Amino acid sequence: MKLLFDLLNKRSVSGDEAEISAFIVNYVTKRSLGWKVQPVIFSGEEFHDCVLLKFGIPKTAVFAHLDTIGFMTRYQNQLVAVGGPEIIAGTKLVGKDNKGEISCKVLGDEDSCFHDFPRGIEAGTRLSFEQTIRLDDEYIQAAYLDNRLGIYNALKLCETIDNGWVIFSTYEEHGGGSMPFLLKFIQENAPIRQALISDITWITEGVQHHNGVVISIRDKFIPRRVFMDKIIDLAEKSGIPFQVEVEAHGGSDGREVQFSPYAIDWCFIGAAEDHVHTPDEKVSLADLDSMIRMYRFLLKEL
Amino acid sequence: MKLLFDLLNKRSVSGDEAEISAFIVNYVTKRSLGWKVQPVIFSGEEFHDCVLLKFGIPKTAVFAHLDTIGFMTRYQNQLVAVGGPEIIAGTKLVGKDNKGEISCKVLGDEDSCFHDFPRGIEAGTRLSFEQTIRLDDEYIQAAYLDNRLGIYNALKLCETIDNGWVIFSTYEEHGGGSMPFLLKFIQENAPIRQALISDITWITEGVQHHNGVVISIRDKFIPRRVFMDKIIDLAEKSGIPFQVEVEAHGGSDGREVQFSPYAIDWCFIGAAEDHVHTPDEKVSLADLDSMIRMYRFLLKEL
Amino acid sequence: MKLLFDLLNKRSVSGDEAEISAFIVNYVTKRSLGWKVQPVIFSGEEFHDCVLLKFGIPKTAVFAHLDTIGFMTRYQNQLVAVGGPEIIAGTKLVGKDNKGEISCKVLGDEDSCFHDFPRGIEAGTRLSFEQTIRLDDEYIQAAYLDNRLGIYNALKLCETIDNGWVIFSTYEEHGGGSMPFLLKFIQENAPIRQALISDITWITEGVQHHNGVVISIRDKFIPRRVFMDKIIDLAEKSGIPFQVEVEAHGGSDGREVQFSPYAIDWCFIGAAEDHVHTPDEKVSLADLDSMIRMYRFLLKEL
Repeated sequence: MKLLFDLLNKRSVSGDEAEISAFIVNYVTKRSLGWKVQPVIFSGEEFHDCVLLKFGIPKTAVFAHLDTIGFMTRYQNQLVAVGGPEIIAGTKLVGKDNKGEISCKVLGDEDSCFHDFPRGIEAGTRLSFEQTIRLDDEYIQAAYLDNRLGIYNALKLCETIDNGWVIFSTYEEHGGGSMPFLLKFIQENAPIRQALISDITWITEGVQHHNGVVISIRDKFIPRRVFMDKIIDLAEKSGIPFQVEVEAHGGSDGREVQFSPYAIDWCFIGAAEDHVHTPDEKVSLADLDSMIRMYRFLLKEL
Repeated sequence: MKLLFDLLNKRSVSGDEAEISAFIVNYVTKRSLGWKVQPVIFSGEEFHDCVLLKFGIPKTAVFAHLDTIGFMTRYQNQLVAVGGPEIIAGTKLVGKDNKGEISCKVLGDEDSCFHDFPRGIEAGTRLSFEQTIRLDDEYIQAAYLDNRLGIYNALKLCETIDNGWVIFSTYEEHGGGSMPFLLKFIQENAPIRQALISDITWITEGVQHHNGVVISIRDKFIPRRVFMDKIIDLAEKSGIPFQVEVEAHGGSDGREVQFSPYAIDWCFIGAAEDHVHTPDEKVSLADLDSMIRMYRFLLKEL
Repeated sequence: MKLLFDLLNKRSVSGDEAEISAFIVNYVTKRSLGWKVQPVIFSGEEFHDCVLLKFGIPKTAVFAHLDTIGFMTRYQNQLVAVGGPEIIAGTKLVGKDNKGEISCKVLGDEDSCFHDFPRGIEAGTRLSFEQTIRLDDEYIQAAYLDNRLGIYNALKLCETIDNGWVIFSTYEEHGGGSMPFLLKFIQENAPIRQALISDITWITEGVQHHNGVVISIRDKFIPRRVFMDKIIDLAEKSGIPFQVEVEAHGGSDGREVQFSPYAIDWCFIGAAEDHVHTPDEKVSLADLDSMIRMYRFLLKEL
């Protein structure tokens, strides 16, 4: 779990993914010699802060977003949300501006929120939840499991994958914007017709801890039925625990696959968390294990 | 009207357009020998469930969407909307899951709706309005005139068209998503600069039954003025009855033409219905006739 | 200021930008002989009503939108908004239909608004604010400073620019739609990785008249941090007055750069106005001067 702890301790509020991106490139460069197949790595200015790994001859792409929700300082002591964080008065935030490290608390509510840092913070500074990782036999609890677990799952997949794209996107929590150029690049270089979204979903009345990885039949958007049927048939054959989700709301990088100028089927597959978008996101370790095993299975079979 | 009745009796809630797509391909294959020009047919996995017909050397494309609104089952007996169906308690729904045929009623309202089917229905199953077609001398009334009439109009156009694309899209009722790859394909193969949207609009205070096909000057989005002026000039010359529409809301496949990376003018032209998105959509037969004649005229003149 | 007055006296409600577009092409054709570098001009049907100027070998593109907010007539004496005009009863509107010139007043409010013109106006006719330009030593006040000042700034930049694209877009006030094809064209002809949005923003508690051109760290959307840091560093070196903005709402052509299939950094830079989207938009002349100087500086340094 050292990798996961390292990921959880990085900051990467949407638009500020340079550090986590460099961490991923460094990790891949070091570790890929031990992987079954060595990927071609695409990263750097031309790809902004995204990272693309091409293994063998891809038929399927896996997408995991690098960014997290958070806050940005406005004028005086005002805060503006980045993505959709839960605003809970008293929540601890951390960050950094040109005057140094920042540690403060959120005050107020969704309509107007503030920080209590004694000195002014430069306008436009990103703040994120203070990280406290809690691990026991059943659960991991921390800020930003969404989407550190999705990244972790993607990197575990890298160890055994023969063919496929593994792609780390940016800006997912704040409307997206990197998926269009990532999709253009992969379709022009090693095109695929299937995409899996490695991300974290919600505990609801129909999705419970310990019941396996979630295969989402829909969120706000709806994947094509013939592809969902194929995925669920394979999942049943796999013997790996899974549960299906049907939601009216929510979105993921899948949205931008749907609206891209390429006929690519997509499906969101990921463990479920409760306390979504708070510092206390909580995921069953058994569900995380199912997620990792399901991706390894599907990337072989699809 | 056999073709129209066949279309009305198919089910194709957004994301599940495989059956209607196969029907269209089969119909075109059989009937196109009797058409003035035989089209090149593009369909199959590469195009998901869309169908493209290329006649001669296209200058204009006509788009008709294959999907309908409907419902998807969630957990227990909950329903989630697909597109924007009117939720009227007591409305009959039909569908099918792995346990067999389903026939039930909608309960509840827009905030939370349910079905009354005695057994559980598999989560993620699509349901649609039970179809009852009513035809008299003046009107046709049925579920899903939007967009079965648009498809019917497009297929009638196929009989006489010399040059142009006739394209059957998917997902229109639920945010779209096929138009971007369809537009990319046509622009890279036989590019056009003009698009007509063959779809059904609304009866309002300014748009009445029997006043002719509707040419929409705007809905939520606004086509370019120089193109609208050209269309309306031609419509006036045609002698075919038409009325103009100016709305602040609503959308169509035209939206995705507007936001595509191609400079393509677009215009929505279609008959108006009342009881929109209910099982009782109602259209004047005279307006449908004007729609068919207007498309035949415009595809010659544009 | 003759150029600015000429621009302010043109009408170009979204979708109806043909006249202003022709004015720009004519101006550029006449004046460019006196510019440091003569641009290649792209305009005409293939580009709808947009105009693109290519100077030297571009690294950066500057976008200024040609359209304004306004109104469109509906049925009877109803009005529908184009973009987001402030609806202030009594505001004077002007326009033209096939029966002649129109001058009338707005009645009603945001929920339902009307005009008081004695005769009927053809449905689908565009109306815009009557123009009254007020100029003193400190301020300019007029309708449509947003975005006539952005166009003016872009045309002043043309006088001295060595390398870069200067691009006049359409439809920005009503959801956009020209940026995708403009970006595709420039990336396929002389690609860039940086974009500046020459547009007008809002006076707020943190942005005041006379404090310099505004560099926007975010509106509804968020440019990439590494690019913002670069812009602000350069702005500091320039010695030209500027202020930074952090907003939760609002958008610009930058939104469409963000969501394009190209990895292009973007930043909104423009003077601030109060009385936004009324006939009384007001901008500090000192801030306009800072805007013009900042663009000239940045296009050299970026």
